Amino acid sequence: MALKLYGAPMSTCTSRVLTCLHEKDLDFELVLVDLFAGEHKQPPFLAKKCKHQIFILFCVCIYQIPFPFTINELYFICVQPFGQIPALEDDDLTVFESRAITSYVAEKFKETGYDLTRHQNIKEAALVKVWTEVESQQFHPAIAPIIFQFFVAPLQGNSPDQTIIDANLEKLGKVLDIYEAKLTSTKYLAGDFYSLADLHHLPYAYYLMKTPAASVVNERPHVKAWWEDISTRPAFKKVAEGMNFGEK
Amino acid sequence: MALKLYGAPMSTCTSRVLTCLHEKDLDFELVLVDLFAGEHKQPPFLAKKCKHQIFILFCVCIYQIPFPFTINELYFICVQPFGQIPALEDDDLTVFESRAITSYVAEKFKETGYDLTRHQNIKEAALVKVWTEVESQQFHPAIAPIIFQFFVAPLQGNSPDQTIIDANLEKLGKVLDIYEAKLTSTKYLAGDFYSLADLHHLPYAYYLMKTPAASVVNERPHVKAWWEDISTRPAFKKVAEGMNFGEK
Ligand SMILES: N[C@@H](CCC(=O)N[C@@H](CS)C(=O)NCC(=O)O)C(=O)O
Ligand SMILES: N[C@@H](CCC(=O)N[C@@H](CS)C(=O)NCC(=O)O)C(=O)O
Repeated sequence: MALKLYGAPMSTCTSRVLTCLHEKDLDFELVLVDLFAGEHKQPPFLAKKCKHQIFILFCVCIYQIPFPFTINELYFICVQPFGQIPALEDDDLTVFESRAITSYVAEKFKETGYDLTRHQNIKEAALVKVWTEVESQQFHPAIAPIIFQFFVAPLQGNSPDQTIIDANLEKLGKVLDIYEAKLTSTKYLAGDFYSLADLHHLPYAYYLMKTPAASVVNERPHVKAWWEDISTRPAFKKVAEGMNFGEK
Repeated sequence: MALKLYGAPMSTCTSRVLTCLHEKDLDFELVLVDLFAGEHKQPPFLAKKCKHQIFILFCVCIYQIPFPFTINELYFICVQPFGQIPALEDDDLTVFESRAITSYVAEKFKETGYDLTRHQNIKEAALVKVWTEVESQQFHPAIAPIIFQFFVAPLQGNSPDQTIIDANLEKLGKVLDIYEAKLTSTKYLAGDFYSLADLHHLPYAYYLMKTPAASVVNERPHVKAWWEDISTRPAFKKVAEGMNFGEK
């Protein structure tokens, strides 16, 4: 059975997984789940519904009571306890959390497409793990609030909070100083090979580069060259076409 | 050569790795690095020094200029670009970021001690990855600011900020609601087996349980039973003896 990815192309976490699937040359079906559509689809609601999935299925299947979800969304609610996209269905297994999905895909299909984990070299594989964690623990906590302010706050009717942006840009700049130093000695983060560690940065950095805060990348020559390299790989270029966060 | 762990027993991230090393029954040397000792050891300084490691080595080795670091700390500065503990040295390889270290150790020594990753079963291994990411992306961002307020702020001469504690306790409660539902159907997070996914929770939860905020765990019967189970494993009990955050 083909892989099924539940998600939305403009969502950062979905596009992290999409990029990985393309790098691995895998066939898959993208099942659209539009979590931004309405208030009733917010996580607390989903989590609560999740506990009552049998009740929901009763309403929909037995009593034919109309429900504000499509069948795909309903399925999704039952498998992803946090009510967040993406989730990957591989036969009877459902994997969620974008970084767990990419790591699962990269390992299960290690002989297919591009090798994202350096699975044949334990030291290189360890460095991929290290820099994958750096993205998750150092880069992500700094960049996520910036993207939220620039792109999500306006959708919620608020203007971006410059204080939050500035504080996190300072944090991000410090992280990128360390990247700049690292990228002086190796072409990519984990070594002289593109890996999952670089790939995980793409979605948030892509949105950042559409804002005035792009200077935090452009001011650092090695970080800039790295960004230009990783963002022009065919796998990501395909994904980026769908990454529109409400802009025209 | 034996494994060398740079860190401090009271540090949450060090104790995450220590617990893993004990579960795997591995011999190792703990090299104490006390990053809390002084202002000069804060990360921006370390990061800057890191870029000038050759200069530092010159000062110390060639010109014998005294330097405010011990040799162990100096080595550490040169290998951990973020200036944070822990870091693991395995022969000529240095691995940092606590979750990258545990994952490296669990994989390299998969046949030794307790199996933390279910490496023989691809589905179970995938679920370990999923719930390991849940700790990193959902649990950690909620609990870390609470622990900071209760334990670190007082060391810096500030009293805990109750507004920050309350906001994050609410977030943490929502995450633990989902754990409560999950732990109703399986004994541990990834399934009916203890794994790295459970282990990664130990250090922060251990400090949380020393505060009034422990109620967020105690009010949820399955979470409470899970906590009592995982925190009484011999490997963690040994580590917890060293976890004193300035308390008497
Ligand atoms: N840590 C998760 C985060 C998932 C996440 O935040 N997904 C967002 C879209 S990028 C979402 O579903 N938001 C809708 C919501 O939370 O209601 C991952 O990496 O998969
Ligand atoms: N994400 C890192 C965090 C490491 C970290 O924050 N370490 C703390 C001790 S728990 C530290 O070194 N703090 C001292 C400092 O940052 O100066 C990991 O998991 O290893």
